[in-house]
Amino acid sequence: MLKIGIMGTSGYAGEELLKILLRHPEAKITAVAAKIDTAHIGKLYPWLNGMLDLECGDMSAEEVSKKCDCVFLALPHKVSMQFVPVLLKAGKKVIDLSADFRLRDAGVYEKWYEVKHECHEYIKKAVYGLPELYRTDIKKTDLVANPGCYPTSVILGCVPLLKKGFIETDSIICDSKSGVSGAGRVPAQALMFTEIQNSFRAYKVNSHRHMPEMDQELSVASGASVSVNFTPHLAPMERGILSTIYLKLKKKLDTKSALQLYKDFYKKEYFVRVMDKGIFPDTKNVARSNFCDIGLQVFPEKSLAIVMTAIDNLVKGASGQAVQNMNIMYGFEEKAGL
Amino acid sequence: MLKIGIMGTSGYAGEELLKILLRHPEAKITAVAAKIDTAHIGKLYPWLNGMLDLECGDMSAEEVSKKCDCVFLALPHKVSMQFVPVLLKAGKKVIDLSADFRLRDAGVYEKWYEVKHECHEYIKKAVYGLPELYRTDIKKTDLVANPGCYPTSVILGCVPLLKKGFIETDSIICDSKSGVSGAGRVPAQALMFTEIQNSFRAYKVNSHRHMPEMDQELSVASGASVSVNFTPHLAPMERGILSTIYLKLKKKLDTKSALQLYKDFYKKEYFVRVMDKGIFPDTKNVARSNFCDIGLQVFPEKSLAIVMTAIDNLVKGASGQAVQNMNIMYGFEEKAGL
Amino acid sequence: MLKIGIMGTSGYAGEELLKILLRHPEAKITAVAAKIDTAHIGKLYPWLNGMLDLECGDMSAEEVSKKCDCVFLALPHKVSMQFVPVLLKAGKKVIDLSADFRLRDAGVYEKWYEVKHECHEYIKKAVYGLPELYRTDIKKTDLVANPGCYPTSVILGCVPLLKKGFIETDSIICDSKSGVSGAGRVPAQALMFTEIQNSFRAYKVNSHRHMPEMDQELSVASGASVSVNFTPHLAPMERGILSTIYLKLKKKLDTKSALQLYKDFYKKEYFVRVMDKGIFPDTKNVARSNFCDIGLQVFPEKSLAIVMTAIDNLVKGASGQAVQNMNIMYGFEEKAGL
Amino acid sequence: MLKIGIMGTSGYAGEELLKILLRHPEAKITAVAAKIDTAHIGKLYPWLNGMLDLECGDMSAEEVSKKCDCVFLALPHKVSMQFVPVLLKAGKKVIDLSADFRLRDAGVYEKWYEVKHECHEYIKKAVYGLPELYRTDIKKTDLVANPGCYPTSVILGCVPLLKKGFIETDSIICDSKSGVSGAGRVPAQALMFTEIQNSFRAYKVNSHRHMPEMDQELSVASGASVSVNFTPHLAPMERGILSTIYLKLKKKLDTKSALQLYKDFYKKEYFVRVMDKGIFPDTKNVARSNFCDIGLQVFPEKSLAIVMTAIDNLVKGASGQAVQNMNIMYGFEEKAGL
Repeated sequence: MLKIGIMGTSGYAGEELLKILLRHPEAKITAVAAKIDTAHIGKLYPWLNGMLDLECGDMSAEEVSKKCDCVFLALPHKVSMQFVPVLLKAGKKVIDLSADFRLRDAGVYEKWYEVKHECHEYIKKAVYGLPELYRTDIKKTDLVANPGCYPTSVILGCVPLLKKGFIETDSIICDSKSGVSGAGRVPAQALMFTEIQNSFRAYKVNSHRHMPEMDQELSVASGASVSVNFTPHLAPMERGILSTIYLKLKKKLDTKSALQLYKDFYKKEYFVRVMDKGIFPDTKNVARSNFCDIGLQVFPEKSLAIVMTAIDNLVKGASGQAVQNMNIMYGFEEKAGL
Repeated sequence: MLKIGIMGTSGYAGEELLKILLRHPEAKITAVAAKIDTAHIGKLYPWLNGMLDLECGDMSAEEVSKKCDCVFLALPHKVSMQFVPVLLKAGKKVIDLSADFRLRDAGVYEKWYEVKHECHEYIKKAVYGLPELYRTDIKKTDLVANPGCYPTSVILGCVPLLKKGFIETDSIICDSKSGVSGAGRVPAQALMFTEIQNSFRAYKVNSHRHMPEMDQELSVASGASVSVNFTPHLAPMERGILSTIYLKLKKKLDTKSALQLYKDFYKKEYFVRVMDKGIFPDTKNVARSNFCDIGLQVFPEKSLAIVMTAIDNLVKGASGQAVQNMNIMYGFEEKAGL
Repeated sequence: MLKIGIMGTSGYAGEELLKILLRHPEAKITAVAAKIDTAHIGKLYPWLNGMLDLECGDMSAEEVSKKCDCVFLALPHKVSMQFVPVLLKAGKKVIDLSADFRLRDAGVYEKWYEVKHECHEYIKKAVYGLPELYRTDIKKTDLVANPGCYPTSVILGCVPLLKKGFIETDSIICDSKSGVSGAGRVPAQALMFTEIQNSFRAYKVNSHRHMPEMDQELSVASGASVSVNFTPHLAPMERGILSTIYLKLKKKLDTKSALQLYKDFYKKEYFVRVMDKGIFPDTKNVARSNFCDIGLQVFPEKSLAIVMTAIDNLVKGASGQAVQNMNIMYGFEEKAGL
Repeated sequence: MLKIGIMGTSGYAGEELLKILLRHPEAKITAVAAKIDTAHIGKLYPWLNGMLDLECGDMSAEEVSKKCDCVFLALPHKVSMQFVPVLLKAGKKVIDLSADFRLRDAGVYEKWYEVKHECHEYIKKAVYGLPELYRTDIKKTDLVANPGCYPTSVILGCVPLLKKGFIETDSIICDSKSGVSGAGRVPAQALMFTEIQNSFRAYKVNSHRHMPEMDQELSVASGASVSVNFTPHLAPMERGILSTIYLKLKKKLDTKSALQLYKDFYKKEYFVRVMDKGIFPDTKNVARSNFCDIGLQVFPEKSLAIVMTAIDNLVKGASGQAVQNMNIMYGFEEKAGL
């Protein structure tokens, strides 16, 4: 059994890792760290009582590293980069769910995250952990930069058409709607039940930190310099992201051909499901699963394709994809535990 | 006191009319009709007990007309057009919440609604009941065609920029999110609590019946033939619509000027609130009110304006606007009861 | 117009007072205070923009008192008692929504609230603001101690049977379920949307601070020393309390007679609706209204009566009742604004 | 691999069986039947696409029986009893989630369910599938009558104290709160999202069909003839039951001893978790799991014990327990798949 450590257990991504890894046939959780007073993990998560018998507390990377083979970092950006060198030097494999190693260009990182990047050399080692695009590299790396939730939903929705040169790359519009767990677990008045239940609103319009990540990967796919328009919205639901993507066509295309193109592109991908004509994704169909559902329709008379993707922000958008990456890194069945 | 009849009391728009009109200082509800066995209205709506003492049942337009001065039709399309002639001939004023008299072109109506329009002559008499655009006409008419919920949110968001010629009229994208009450009260598995709570999805992509209504009014505003792209979504909340509208600019513009343009355009409108720079609307701030909140940001380097509007689909999107129209028709204070 | 001040505007009860008083035909809000940096009230509550033009900030009781005739205190316990003397000495009428003047016995107050009561002399002046029981006294007082939400729901449900001596006073069981707004607006992880949406749980089992208030009033009603069993629960909804009350009978009774007894007891009370046989209250029917709905059934073979009451915790359970009290104190129509 | 059939796949219990059994290491779903037009199961449940490749349609018990070793009946009462004989005669093991074989006394069944029981002889063969009480019998039977959701939550909460004779058996009060999935999937206006979201109400007060099931098992446990008071409530959440049980004590007891008694009683039971003093169960901690959490507190001065239990109505209250029973019947690890 592979011994697993989780740092940042007290957030939603950390909690989701626990749920998934407890069902994993090849992995065993052996260390759980969080910035809390040390106590049995069942105190933090009463649902876990009887299922996992570990103390959870504020452990250093060194301590965690002694107890595990593979470490998941479900930490805020900036914190991860302090732990990654320690863990890699100790010979561990690391899957980092923060943003610290996702952007190839440290300058872009520093601009968007407004902090100095302190370990440039690891950026080069890191592989962007979107298995549908980088499986071969993931197999060989010790450091996966697990993608953001919104980028996962947008990139998987755009790449097939972009790669084939169908899209005007200067006018991509991504209108995304996310469940509230995406906003994290730090208490805030705006996230209270009473405030959220009847609330639907956009935030960080064309200024969300996930944008450079989308731009980076869509530029790779298209060969052009892409700069997306991205409007994230908060929806009154626990989990799930639906991204509605508007793509201006520069070549003739119809719905049937476009769907075929997506089905071909993802034909070996278990976790991407391209829907039939006239059917669109629904977040409830991917809730608590690692699937990304994709539906689309082309409006040739308007030179427009509308692509929709649905994922669970905590699973394919975070912890599920992280475990998928682990499975690839260790040669397990890719859907083990998922 | 103006005597009010409501036909179609058993749907959500009918119920909302009851709520609003009970608080109205100049109106008194005197007839409530619905396709149900006749019973005290408190049986249909227990919340009304003690507040309204009327029988509700399946009354004809003739019967209703005898008891009222002004009749609200909260009926399905096709049904309204059977009642309107009767009521107008009896000298009543009518506010029709259905789609039957919204479209100036009966052919367009017949294409989208797939039924024959049986009273063309009344289409000409009807005024499209968006007070911010047609107040003068509303004052003089006996028949108001109350706008659809989505069109209200989209038209109010687009008109100021469109009128001034800032927008490429062939690439307007409206991404709208609506609460579930917009889907009506007829039981359906897809609308059950258990099915909706974790569900976010699009429906009727670029094929919703509210599109010709938007096209008609945006064409009037712009002087061009507009054909919007419209993607409605169902959000897991009771009420509210947020429309995120993407407008391609054909002239130079910045956020400050655009906001000023909207503030000027709506400066005499009590029910339209243009927000300050950097602030975007939230459905919870318009819940149960007749306000339409508008926020926007311009991205000059991308030649894009993003306009967002929030309304309550049952109030400014239906029954509140209907009462606003009544207030205008009868010379009451425009916000009476609202 | 009566000039109204609200202290504690930033909590849910304060916000609800704003909603109700803005519709009040005889009252005008002239001062709004809260422990925040002074700013236009529309910044705190964007829904208010265009409706109320006042600055809100950290004002002293003296400052508020200069601007108003009548002051609502929507403050935490212990804070109210510091302001009440100032306001009363300035000749204002005060409606206090905190617990500070509800309990006749300062010792009981000090035991349950674990603070010293610093103005015993005002306890005697205060009238417990449950209009259905104390209307005559409310008319004459300058200081109303507005009841707690749970006590309102329990007392109104028990008093008719208790007064007539039908109930074993030593085994009253009140199983109450409250919406989340009852827990207030201070951010806490346990109250976040993501934590609440699937959560149903009891808290403060037989140890909630509203118990002595119930005991006090039920003891008055019964003439015995009542000590209720009270289990409050948190339900995943915004507002509403349903109390299910189990009463052991010591005399013969059937459902029909019991209902008649309640209908007689409340026959002059607009805001209490006793339901017909076989019908039970639903929080949705009292949402945003000042009604208390009561349903009951007697099981003679088990010597048990089950009484259920539904109120909106923020309206009849707080701010609506407070306005009802104001109406009584000033001789306005009792349902004005409600 | 054990071949599994599910009849009644289109309801919530059927859907939950699919979720659980797909993760089961020893079982393989080979037939899925429902009263719908035959189609790929992915049409009924889009979340299943890629995970299960079966047609689902209106199959007879004979057809299902040919494809499986073990059949789950997630059917309405009265329907199950028509299929059970066929399946048993064909040598299959059957786990029936309906009420048809839960009550030992056919007369009681006929009174509460208002239909004739047509296969009395199978009532004797059936074992009441509450593993914590009947594990030995379950091991040996071919027909399990899977308990109702409310009875599971009430019986597990009462039995330890009842068995030891601590409780007055004539005054047990069970106040239960259930998520909406308990009401099934048949569309009804009262179950629509818009109707439920702000609704909390009781229903079938002391007249719910799960009562005779509780009475039967609590009578067995206590040796007396128990007749519970049972008030079920509908809470605005997807799943979960919290039962708050009020037990009058006839012997001295304190919280510590009572908790010890429960911990001893359930010490070998993986799926029952007795909580520590001062901690009470929360439905969210058992959501999507087969656990039953129990918390309690004794109030000696009031001779009252309050016991609370939380289960997921679709898991421990239905399909999870059904799989637990299957595991016992086939000698699998009891928590396999759960």
